[in-house]
Amino acid sequence: MLVSDRVQKSMKQGSWIRRMFEEGAELKQQYGEENIFDLSLGNPIMEPPVEFHQELRRLAENPLPGMHRYMENAGYTETRAAVAKQLSLEAGVNFTMNDIIMTCGAAGALNVVLKTILNEEDEVIIFAPYFPEYINYIDNHGGIGKVLPTDEQFVPRLDVLEAAIGAKTRAVLINSPNNPSGAVYSEDFLHQLGELLSNKETKYGKQIIRINDEPYRKIVYDGQQCPQVWSHYRQSIIVTSHSKDLALPGERIGYIAVNPGFGQRKELIDGFIYCNRTLGYVNAPALMQHLVRSLQDVTISVAEYQRKRDVLCDHLSEVGYSVMKPQGTFYMFPKSPLEDDIAFVRELLEWRVLTVPGRGFGSPGYFRISFCVDDRTLEGSLAGFRKVAQKFKLY
Amino acid sequence: MLVSDRVQKSMKQGSWIRRMFEEGAELKQQYGEENIFDLSLGNPIMEPPVEFHQELRRLAENPLPGMHRYMENAGYTETRAAVAKQLSLEAGVNFTMNDIIMTCGAAGALNVVLKTILNEEDEVIIFAPYFPEYINYIDNHGGIGKVLPTDEQFVPRLDVLEAAIGAKTRAVLINSPNNPSGAVYSEDFLHQLGELLSNKETKYGKQIIRINDEPYRKIVYDGQQCPQVWSHYRQSIIVTSHSKDLALPGERIGYIAVNPGFGQRKELIDGFIYCNRTLGYVNAPALMQHLVRSLQDVTISVAEYQRKRDVLCDHLSEVGYSVMKPQGTFYMFPKSPLEDDIAFVRELLEWRVLTVPGRGFGSPGYFRISFCVDDRTLEGSLAGFRKVAQKFKLY
Repeated sequence: MLVSDRVQKSMKQGSWIRRMFEEGAELKQQYGEENIFDLSLGNPIMEPPVEFHQELRRLAENPLPGMHRYMENAGYTETRAAVAKQLSLEAGVNFTMNDIIMTCGAAGALNVVLKTILNEEDEVIIFAPYFPEYINYIDNHGGIGKVLPTDEQFVPRLDVLEAAIGAKTRAVLINSPNNPSGAVYSEDFLHQLGELLSNKETKYGKQIIRINDEPYRKIVYDGQQCPQVWSHYRQSIIVTSHSKDLALPGERIGYIAVNPGFGQRKELIDGFIYCNRTLGYVNAPALMQHLVRSLQDVTISVAEYQRKRDVLCDHLSEVGYSVMKPQGTFYMFPKSPLEDDIAFVRELLEWRVLTVPGRGFGSPGYFRISFCVDDRTLEGSLAGFRKVAQKFKLY
Repeated sequence: MLVSDRVQKSMKQGSWIRRMFEEGAELKQQYGEENIFDLSLGNPIMEPPVEFHQELRRLAENPLPGMHRYMENAGYTETRAAVAKQLSLEAGVNFTMNDIIMTCGAAGALNVVLKTILNEEDEVIIFAPYFPEYINYIDNHGGIGKVLPTDEQFVPRLDVLEAAIGAKTRAVLINSPNNPSGAVYSEDFLHQLGELLSNKETKYGKQIIRINDEPYRKIVYDGQQCPQVWSHYRQSIIVTSHSKDLALPGERIGYIAVNPGFGQRKELIDGFIYCNRTLGYVNAPALMQHLVRSLQDVTISVAEYQRKRDVLCDHLSEVGYSVMKPQGTFYMFPKSPLEDDIAFVRELLEWRVLTVPGRGFGSPGYFRISFCVDDRTLEGSLAGFRKVAQKFKLY
């Protein structure tokens, strides 16, 4: 066979998100795109903020000499300094450019981190429901993903984590605001998690790294702020991108930030810069680095997403679905009225509504709805949700 | 330790190119940038062609709806079709968009290919002198790099290759036009190589993949064309980028192209698309995909590089260095007048000329000069080369 055993195996397990995407593409061909209500993908419908377009025009009209050349693998010093400045403001912790490495999106950032820190068979703990690519990323670098449960509010269960951490645990990966649940972890939870990890570090005499995957940090609702992770645990890093807050997912621009108080941080950061190069990313795309430099305090309209959330969430509750109102992100993760979430998602397909079964995220019995879609799609889906609710006598 | 054993080990072995970069940065601080003649990096000094700037302005002023969103992981169909069209014209082979996958540069492309095809301990054959990152890329995906010699003209020795291919050989990686030697492999050589590989396929009953790393394909001199690889071997793919031909190295835009006649190509291409996603590249940067679509027949001024080559090559020959005139790329790879190439490179440093010792490319006894620099740097270096030649009585 041409394709390696490992890749073949993981291709076969496949991705439920992609499978729905493909079934959706077929339906779209059959019925016309405007008759399909596709809530399966996290591909933000909004355009980047007006400031982005201004900055792009400005740079296109006044190109900087050498602005498309290689730069240091960690990224432009000006961009890293701008990220550090904004992060310091938000976090109340003093970051410098040396704490920041620009990357090809959060996916690039997370692969760089895992490549740097994982020895063969080191464990990385994740929590279900989880972003399914985590499994691939951990596997890419020889790690073992250990999946732990969350509670009814989709918050990691600390009692289970307490029992699960062992001598092989290298990192705990959390994702708040959470894809697919929309949960935002509280200050109190982060503090308890930090204490638990500190105790385990002492017990095992090694550093345990908390990786915070935060591409949705700015997408939180009801006037809340996403709690900062830094003060609660020294060995904290974040991986993130501008895919959601600036609506640039196709551009692959993100960064790694390392807690200035992290023990032996110089060694770690040198490792990140090295792996950013040797994994073949080389550097984050140059033009995007120039652009996001002056857009660190800009975000797309969160109110717009909140409106969409409310329309959908109110409707689902009204017709009898059991759903936690998301505090952030543009996803919700209702209980599947059928035990078999795949069967249920197929019921919705009958009404040309595309969603993703929960087992794609390690949580069977749920399904994910993505509401970063235009209003026509969102409103068009409501009838389908109602019809299926009627069929299963939810109201 | 925080950094994995494997990464630590390979960081210690380090990169000679980077080491020279760092020594150079120190010298620049000490003496001022204008007094250092840095010929160590392949960072093209030229700006992208005027057509690129026009296209960027046009797109900035008339943004397409959704032009920064996710697209299919293989890239925009329009971009892939444009690449296929140009490649068909150049190669006389009929490519379609289905043979093309857009990637984050050639480095991204090569990592995707290796991830897809390598089982643990599969061998990839490379030839010294080689681009040093090959070692890292092969190692990233569990492969074993097997380094074979080239002849006096830096062309792979087929007799040695014949003896070296075995049951574990998965791929042969060639790089023409070659970094660091500037060699361009002839039609005749490619044909013989194809025959050799076909025989080995029959012998071992398995496909052996020829990977052609071709970012310098358009940078060839004296009115020559770079011979096309396609007709000489079915199991051929190329990995390449627009880093050099459009002077966009910081933008990370490249592609994989698969020979339309490749056996079981659908399986292979699906694997590439999958690994492009799961390695965390996700897709090639969106804006660059839009831009290069209409620039497939555009190239920076090769004449300008040829002029620089001639100035430097003539001078080196005149003062007694033994150097093969590069037929392509913007590198040359002279013999080190001292057996110890590191000692020799340090002699040049005394005259503030930065080059890279040949052992960084697997070929001790040589050194690499990069001439993609401005004329001031190039001309400023000539005195240093002469002084050192005098010291060692080369003329």
